[in-house]
Amino acid sequence: MAALTEVSSNKSFGGQQKVFSHESAELKCTMKFGVFLPPAASGGKVPVIYWLSGLTCTEQNFVTKAGAQKYAAEHGLIIVAPDTSPRGVNIEGEDDSYDFGSGAGFYVDATQDKWQTNYRMYSYITKELPTLINENFPTIPDRQSIMGHSMGGHGALICTLKNPGKYRSVSAFSPICNPVNCPWGQKAFNGYLGADQAVWKTYDACELARQYNGPALDILVDQGKADNFLTQKQLLPENLVEVCSEKKIPITLRMQEDYDHSYFFIASFIEDHIRHHALHLKA
Amino acid sequence: MAALTEVSSNKSFGGQQKVFSHESAELKCTMKFGVFLPPAASGGKVPVIYWLSGLTCTEQNFVTKAGAQKYAAEHGLIIVAPDTSPRGVNIEGEDDSYDFGSGAGFYVDATQDKWQTNYRMYSYITKELPTLINENFPTIPDRQSIMGHSMGGHGALICTLKNPGKYRSVSAFSPICNPVNCPWGQKAFNGYLGADQAVWKTYDACELARQYNGPALDILVDQGKADNFLTQKQLLPENLVEVCSEKKIPITLRMQEDYDHSYFFIASFIEDHIRHHALHLKA
Repeated sequence: MAALTEVSSNKSFGGQQKVFSHESAELKCTMKFGVFLPPAASGGKVPVIYWLSGLTCTEQNFVTKAGAQKYAAEHGLIIVAPDTSPRGVNIEGEDDSYDFGSGAGFYVDATQDKWQTNYRMYSYITKELPTLINENFPTIPDRQSIMGHSMGGHGALICTLKNPGKYRSVSAFSPICNPVNCPWGQKAFNGYLGADQAVWKTYDACELARQYNGPALDILVDQGKADNFLTQKQLLPENLVEVCSEKKIPITLRMQEDYDHSYFFIASFIEDHIRHHALHLKA
Repeated sequence: MAALTEVSSNKSFGGQQKVFSHESAELKCTMKFGVFLPPAASGGKVPVIYWLSGLTCTEQNFVTKAGAQKYAAEHGLIIVAPDTSPRGVNIEGEDDSYDFGSGAGFYVDATQDKWQTNYRMYSYITKELPTLINENFPTIPDRQSIMGHSMGGHGALICTLKNPGKYRSVSAFSPICNPVNCPWGQKAFNGYLGADQAVWKTYDACELARQYNGPALDILVDQGKADNFLTQKQLLPENLVEVCSEKKIPITLRMQEDYDHSYFFIASFIEDHIRHHALHLKA
């Protein structure tokens, strides 16, 4: 069993909000993650939701700002919030921009020289981390769901679409829905994956939805109408809705009047997302 | 009308979480405060709650971590969250410690040479800020309440006890209840107010409760049992309860098992505090 080091522990809504660090084999560095243990977890095994954060975030943003603990406590769900990229790996240029390198792992396994040793967030999130969580906390391993925000919404969507049946449900706040067609995605995929756009497509939610052939999905997406990144065509939720319509994949896209890209938006609707996952995790 | 500059505005739970800056006449510097405007504030005047934060905080801590917006929206209440000390006034030694100077104004009007020009948080909170808020937002000026955390719990208590009838209700999380008898209070009062302990007593909740002679109070205090500062005798809620018992001032002290001094504690019980104030503000 891989060793966990407790970084912090705070009682929250009758449960425990903890942060741990551990040595990641996939990322070859020390990583942190947040884990909320609801009161129900002290009496038996419970389902788990993974939360993937967006650009520039660490595990702290969701833990301190989303207000999810109340609803996780009420529904009896563990929530795991990992960091968004390898840390302290000292790759040249890693800290040069907010949308590539540190804090911007984009939930892919890099293939390009400088990045391929450490930047393996896809394998970390879908394999190493769940194994670690299931070994160390009272989870029901086959009852897990995933959600995320922005870059993390992209991550939640692709982890689900690439692994039919692995997650009971998926939801996202302002996700990057079609990274091969937006500036953020093109920069990240070119840097981590190289020039071959056929490889990019294996991490693109729209492309993956087009080819999806697994258990029925029930995707929930909230998107603020006053989100600058929506206007700048970084998110492209309309493209995902179009593919899902063609493929008859149920998706609910809620366009929320006047809401922006911030954690104030997430906090306003996290209750609905946790209820959505609870319905599927307890079905 | 004093000019306000909008620093940020985010839709939150159907309302607006904003931050403004302004030039403070009392503090002789530029100050920021957070203000949550519930949906009800767009249709008419509503009551207001002031939140006073603790040591090291700015207006941001409550705004981003307490999760109060949901309940303020439900009850139709404005919440104002000021900063905790003057900023950028460049007094020698101002940044030397976490518990004196910057971020540690202690809600007193300083009398000592170096501090007396700027460190006038008591007058700022009880006079300048409410005037500014009432001029600029749709408040009902005679329906205001106050709450706070730690040093800000001390602030909420003394503002209420020194101004009978000014606040409809008061509540606190882990307040410093008897500063003249704890290390934090003694250091702050000695620094801001000088050596005369008779002056200290004019800002001590226990002393003020002993002399209180105003409208009936209904004080709500939440205190974590696993709070290190409780163990270190910085908070002394038992002294306040003792005085209130003698004086027949109703006080509810809830000792919360396993909770600490953090915003995780505040978020867990902020719903109860806002309900407490709503009852009094709408009576």
